[in-house]
Amino acid sequence: MIRAQADDRHPDLRAAIGHLLASGGKRVRPAVVLLVGQMLGGPQDKLVTLGAAVEMLHTATLIHDDLIDSSLLRRGMPTLNARWSPAATVLTGDFMFARAAKLAAETDYLPLMKLFAETLAIIVNGELTQLFRSRGLVSRENYCQRIYAKTASLFEMSTRAAAMVSPVDDELTEAMRQYGYEIGVAFQIVDDILDFTSDQAEIGKPVGGDLLQGLVTLPTLYYAEANPKDPDVLLLAEGGYGNHERMERLVNAIRASPAIEQASLEARQHVQRSLDILQPLPPSVEREALVDLANYITDRKQ
Amino acid sequence: MIRAQADDRHPDLRAAIGHLLASGGKRVRPAVVLLVGQMLGGPQDKLVTLGAAVEMLHTATLIHDDLIDSSLLRRGMPTLNARWSPAATVLTGDFMFARAAKLAAETDYLPLMKLFAETLAIIVNGELTQLFRSRGLVSRENYCQRIYAKTASLFEMSTRAAAMVSPVDDELTEAMRQYGYEIGVAFQIVDDILDFTSDQAEIGKPVGGDLLQGLVTLPTLYYAEANPKDPDVLLLAEGGYGNHERMERLVNAIRASPAIEQASLEARQHVQRSLDILQPLPPSVEREALVDLANYITDRKQ
Repeated sequence: MIRAQADDRHPDLRAAIGHLLASGGKRVRPAVVLLVGQMLGGPQDKLVTLGAAVEMLHTATLIHDDLIDSSLLRRGMPTLNARWSPAATVLTGDFMFARAAKLAAETDYLPLMKLFAETLAIIVNGELTQLFRSRGLVSRENYCQRIYAKTASLFEMSTRAAAMVSPVDDELTEAMRQYGYEIGVAFQIVDDILDFTSDQAEIGKPVGGDLLQGLVTLPTLYYAEANPKDPDVLLLAEGGYGNHERMERLVNAIRASPAIEQASLEARQHVQRSLDILQPLPPSVEREALVDLANYITDRKQ
Repeated sequence: MIRAQADDRHPDLRAAIGHLLASGGKRVRPAVVLLVGQMLGGPQDKLVTLGAAVEMLHTATLIHDDLIDSSLLRRGMPTLNARWSPAATVLTGDFMFARAAKLAAETDYLPLMKLFAETLAIIVNGELTQLFRSRGLVSRENYCQRIYAKTASLFEMSTRAAAMVSPVDDELTEAMRQYGYEIGVAFQIVDDILDFTSDQAEIGKPVGGDLLQGLVTLPTLYYAEANPKDPDVLLLAEGGYGNHERMERLVNAIRASPAIEQASLEARQHVQRSLDILQPLPPSVEREALVDLANYITDRKQ
């Protein structure tokens, strides 16, 4: 369905979408849409459309993100902006937004359209905030807002939207929204941990890359709380994240500290909350898959 | 209503929207929405929402266009990309898309949402096609497709959507769509003529700027039809639009030729068709204003 969105369009645009689809990705968001919707007895055609819409919205934001960050690799494959001009990259992202909106509209449910547009605004506003805010040591509240805008909002939308097109009451829809929120928060925390712990070759970017760019995530926050007088933490607090040598030393200190395990535990708590939400639901193949999916989020290595 | 879309968002984003609103513009599209909708007895609140959505969608595409073309001025004012980073400019455009979609959803009418998303896809696909296509002498068919994607599609959407939220039958909705299409085509042809005839100071870009960038519009097509053996036309056909001196000579030849008047006549024919569509409608203040607006499109000097 995603590929079909570029039918009858310019061949280069079709090639770009082919490239994006071939680049892989876990497709976690459409999987969540389909599983939640099928568990709740939602109509298959609308769930597929919704899953495609969510994945296209996600892809559109990644295209613009990679351009903004001048990232040349994603999942070990060249990004669109590594191969194309900035102009073509901006427009391909815009095209993906347009088609995502079209697919969302095809679910024939207005509240879902509003949710879709609102979520896009939350994501983009979050990116703008991150862009303008002076980098360096941020508060935990700031970190929570950032990961909500960046990741949890779209997970929350996915599960909520799947419930909205299914024959269930508001209470269950709200429970599904919470499930999406919890796994979304866990997903981003784990991403932030993997930035410290993954092998460079595996994730296609330098170890501790976030911190080297001045982006403070949960492991750094835990380390700073435990070591407020570490000279590198003090330097970071003063805005000295541009000092590459000192920040590399800080990355290594964090990797060797309990901060990684503390952050993992926090991700695990969010997963546990998501499991608590699923627990009272009647047993089904989909419920088991959603349990597995929640567990996978903290267990994954990339 | 447009300004309110950035309430509660990042101050820099509010400043950007303030800058965009202060930069003026004719607001032709929302004017058309309100006039058509009021003429047809549509609900005022939905028409205002729709007008804001259309103008925001238009503004979002302009923001990304100016970035792609590295334009530093629009309507004599600095563009967003002239003052901000490319990253902030991309994201501000994305934010405007998101809010335009939200406003469109607030009209509570699904077919309108689909039309909205489809129009965005047409506009973006048109821009991508223009970006990839080798420049130089194009066919008239190509020119027509380009101005439809670039301008007429959004005018057509504006008038059609205004009719869709109004208590009228399909026939009248289709007539309004045609009215929008005709004034949209005329609007772009006149823009293309003004690129040749306007004073540099008035439009804030060089005379004949389109052709100097290899973009062939209606005056050039008329001139090339009448002077197929002009050496500068032959050079253009061979892809030699990069020869600045020769292209400047061609711009001056076109300015002094009947091609300008022929293109004006063609714009005038589209306006006449739009007037023919309005003619059978019952007299009203709005109908008269739409007649004036159609006439203004060919009479305007900027």
